[in-house]
Amino acid sequence: MKAKHFHPDWTEKAPAPGSFRSIFKYGDAQGFKHPSDNWYEMMKTEFHLSDDDFRKKQEEGNKQVILNRPGTLTSSQIEQIKSIAGDQNVALDDYSRVKYAYGKTTEEMLELRQGIVREVADVVVHPRDKFDVRKIVEYCNAERIPITVFSAGSSVNFGCRPARGGVSLVVSTHMNKLLDVNEQNQTARVGPGMFGPAYEKALNSAPELFHTSRRYTCGHFPQSFEYSTVGGWVVTLGSGQASTYYGDACDIVFSQEYVTPAGTFKTLDFPATATGPKVNDILKGSEGTFGILVEVTMKIFRYMPENRRRFSFMFPTWEAAVNASREIMQSEFGKPAIYRISDPEETDRGLKLYGMPGIVDTFLALRGFLPMQRCLCLGNVEGDRDYTKLVKRKLTRIARLNGAISLGAYAATKWEKTRYTEPYMREDLGDYGILIDTLEVGVTWDNLHRLHEGVRAYIKSRPDTMCMTHASHFYPQGTNLYFIFIAQMTDTAEYREFQKGIIDNIQKFGGSLSHHHGVGRMIGPWMEAHLGKEQMAVLRALKKHFDPNHIMNPGGQLGLDDVS
Amino acid sequence: MKAKHFHPDWTEKAPAPGSFRSIFKYGDAQGFKHPSDNWYEMMKTEFHLSDDDFRKKQEEGNKQVILNRPGTLTSSQIEQIKSIAGDQNVALDDYSRVKYAYGKTTEEMLELRQGIVREVADVVVHPRDKFDVRKIVEYCNAERIPITVFSAGSSVNFGCRPARGGVSLVVSTHMNKLLDVNEQNQTARVGPGMFGPAYEKALNSAPELFHTSRRYTCGHFPQSFEYSTVGGWVVTLGSGQASTYYGDACDIVFSQEYVTPAGTFKTLDFPATATGPKVNDILKGSEGTFGILVEVTMKIFRYMPENRRRFSFMFPTWEAAVNASREIMQSEFGKPAIYRISDPEETDRGLKLYGMPGIVDTFLALRGFLPMQRCLCLGNVEGDRDYTKLVKRKLTRIARLNGAISLGAYAATKWEKTRYTEPYMREDLGDYGILIDTLEVGVTWDNLHRLHEGVRAYIKSRPDTMCMTHASHFYPQGTNLYFIFIAQMTDTAEYREFQKGIIDNIQKFGGSLSHHHGVGRMIGPWMEAHLGKEQMAVLRALKKHFDPNHIMNPGGQLGLDDVS
Repeated sequence: MKAKHFHPDWTEKAPAPGSFRSIFKYGDAQGFKHPSDNWYEMMKTEFHLSDDDFRKKQEEGNKQVILNRPGTLTSSQIEQIKSIAGDQNVALDDYSRVKYAYGKTTEEMLELRQGIVREVADVVVHPRDKFDVRKIVEYCNAERIPITVFSAGSSVNFGCRPARGGVSLVVSTHMNKLLDVNEQNQTARVGPGMFGPAYEKALNSAPELFHTSRRYTCGHFPQSFEYSTVGGWVVTLGSGQASTYYGDACDIVFSQEYVTPAGTFKTLDFPATATGPKVNDILKGSEGTFGILVEVTMKIFRYMPENRRRFSFMFPTWEAAVNASREIMQSEFGKPAIYRISDPEETDRGLKLYGMPGIVDTFLALRGFLPMQRCLCLGNVEGDRDYTKLVKRKLTRIARLNGAISLGAYAATKWEKTRYTEPYMREDLGDYGILIDTLEVGVTWDNLHRLHEGVRAYIKSRPDTMCMTHASHFYPQGTNLYFIFIAQMTDTAEYREFQKGIIDNIQKFGGSLSHHHGVGRMIGPWMEAHLGKEQMAVLRALKKHFDPNHIMNPGGQLGLDDVS
Repeated sequence: MKAKHFHPDWTEKAPAPGSFRSIFKYGDAQGFKHPSDNWYEMMKTEFHLSDDDFRKKQEEGNKQVILNRPGTLTSSQIEQIKSIAGDQNVALDDYSRVKYAYGKTTEEMLELRQGIVREVADVVVHPRDKFDVRKIVEYCNAERIPITVFSAGSSVNFGCRPARGGVSLVVSTHMNKLLDVNEQNQTARVGPGMFGPAYEKALNSAPELFHTSRRYTCGHFPQSFEYSTVGGWVVTLGSGQASTYYGDACDIVFSQEYVTPAGTFKTLDFPATATGPKVNDILKGSEGTFGILVEVTMKIFRYMPENRRRFSFMFPTWEAAVNASREIMQSEFGKPAIYRISDPEETDRGLKLYGMPGIVDTFLALRGFLPMQRCLCLGNVEGDRDYTKLVKRKLTRIARLNGAISLGAYAATKWEKTRYTEPYMREDLGDYGILIDTLEVGVTWDNLHRLHEGVRAYIKSRPDTMCMTHASHFYPQGTNLYFIFIAQMTDTAEYREFQKGIIDNIQKFGGSLSHHHGVGRMIGPWMEAHLGKEQMAVLRALKKHFDPNHIMNPGGQLGLDDVS
């Protein structure tokens, strides 16, 4: 085969059962999405590589998981746990212990490729229902056995790492049903371990399943939608891709039921109440450190895909894109659902990724939309039919006033096709020693450019490193910035150091440490400096109240280091 | 004068300085709003009274305040406090001690009319700034001197009663400025003691005062707007009359700075963040029990009164009004700003109060809109010009589909004229032994009718008692119910018993104990049963963290009874 037509042998085979790769691979075992030819060419150019560098895969993680690490629970404790949850719901094998200890961070992938395994639980438990959870928490609290909750395992910050061993409590195996749809209140009561697609499908099918008069939608569509769960969205403060309209996960929660060492309770079902600080809010973002979310009642929305209207624009500059976006979010004519702007580097690389025809590129350049200046904007509007018409018309006008040209629905439609599948590329790149990772921040309008420039400058200061940034969750007061960096890197220590530098710079330039990925153990060490010691002390006081024996998700989660 | 033309001698004179009446009178000393002739006739009929009953006023509270109650602080403590806040900002006189201990509950009014004074502070302090507050809190914490915060004194639940003596800390005297408008972020930083009209006027005048390019509005207009403060809105979880569009106070808060015994801190300025449970949320609704709000950054909105569109409708029944309202709130075409529906009794009495011409009444009845069935709906839409047009058109259509006829802007305009002045009637009624009071709850759609009927039935079970109810703050998941009761009653014990029965029934029928008035000391005793002991324990744990010595607003506030 001639080099001209060379294609890397992107893996198209499901990882072997029991292999390390089966643990770190994103999404469906049979699911793949490979870099486009243009992307492949871009990587070679950017990283000074040749086809030869893509002839042999590195550290694929195809070995079988062998742990050789005896658990520390006594056989009597294991028996007790089995008697609570049922034999068939308790696993002690190596593979389960590793699988249910791992999320999807880049660091985990790098290490699992080499067969390096960090902390795991002694035992994996799949509770059947909230009553099982309650008994397990009571028992583990009495016995001082740590519990780490595992739902989808899509954490990108070691949120489900059993840093102190003990129990991995997997809520997605059984506690994954849509329990009730209340059509009058437009709410749905759901098990924490229900995955996005099942939840959305059940809501779309509410007339058939729950005898409602209408179909509903959950309104929450993170990139991880297919492989994340409702409970995970809530306890990590996630945001969906349509959050600009529907709100973040914290806004969509109506009430929650928790099992904690300090007791089991359900917050009350009220649309609003002035009865003191809201425990319902206090629990959002607690990431399993206070207790376990066993049921959640979510706000739901009418399902009206027929009213959806897509738009895409090209802005001449990042400043123009930001100015238009701020004007759109503050103008009070309603809000788009999905709304994204890409910075110049992401725009240009994105045009390659999505395969924008060359003629369009030429046309854009002739019109003055120049590479490394122009910025892509895309999205859609949802809601009532007349509302979506109005909002699209108004935002289009503002975009044009800021120098944009409309690209019709083209880019938005293209983007939607791959909205959930991009993470699949990570394995392909990793097979050839290329790493793709992200960090995201919340930021006010008045600090957006400074933060963007500061963090980007740090990332770009590393030679041969791509940095693509977009804003994808909008508020009248600001937005988020999502930094994607791609580099040739396989050394875990080098990666860690680089990532630490990025987070240091996020902090230095005034971004929030996380916008919608939560904190986990990864960002924990920055928390006290970020929030200040007085606010960290509030979180620690709550921790002490809910979990006096430090059994809930211990070992650095949220920066709440346990005393022991 | 003939009885036919008799008018009660409604008081038109400001209360004497230093009198009890000057403390309990609502609003401006020179401000009055008297019952209309129709109302006067209605009261006579309802309570079986004659003009003679309105010839002599009862217990007007015109006596001078004399306390004869020495404070318990040592002279050295007083001197220390003076050295912190300045001599001129520390008051020890009887009148100040009583004035800054009282809110606007009916019970307080009944007792002050008789010269009965409950707990007061030993000393009244008017801090000059947040640095004074910090020093006072540090000193009082070291000396175990209780502090009760007083801002506007509009509390309707003993929220500013110094139940353990000590210091009344008045933040509205000096800490009442608009400190900064951030036009990019659409936020305003404001002293907690700034009153509504001053705040709104400053935002409307932002171009002149802060060199902004646009005018802004605060979006928060409670009935108490003229006599309540921004800080009070936030710490009691208030709602403004336009909350359906702008959100409740808790939604409009961007960040807060607090002085607590556990330290001083400001929550971070981010439009969204996923860094654990949000301390910014935890403090909302804390009612001075955790610490003192010394600065708050609020979201602000573009001031576009030219786009405002008013509407009013008459629905044939309460069910039709509720059904239409739910449809409007769930249809996703945008939201009205002010939106209110009155139940049949409020509608009929309201028509009298607002002086709806008899011909309209006749017309309505002929069209089938019958007394004690028909329900008034009124409101307005704010925002972008095209948005307000759309929202008004859409909600009008839904109202018509539910059997309503449009009354044009008439009722909304009428209502707006008196939106802030109705509380003034309380003194007039009280002068003749008639009491008007309110309680309000949050409720989901699916429990609205049951709650309305249950609470109303209890109130109406007392002979000769009016009960008017409206819903005035709407959400996709439900609304509030605002119960107004009017009765001939002067005995405080009887009043307390009746009020207790209403709250018991609110609890029994599943309403939240408060929708936007907070909890104070009045509703505190119901809190544990309402939230459950596990959730009360969370609030107590926070209390213990922030205020280990129980000096902050102690004595039953939020139901957090101190240990001492």
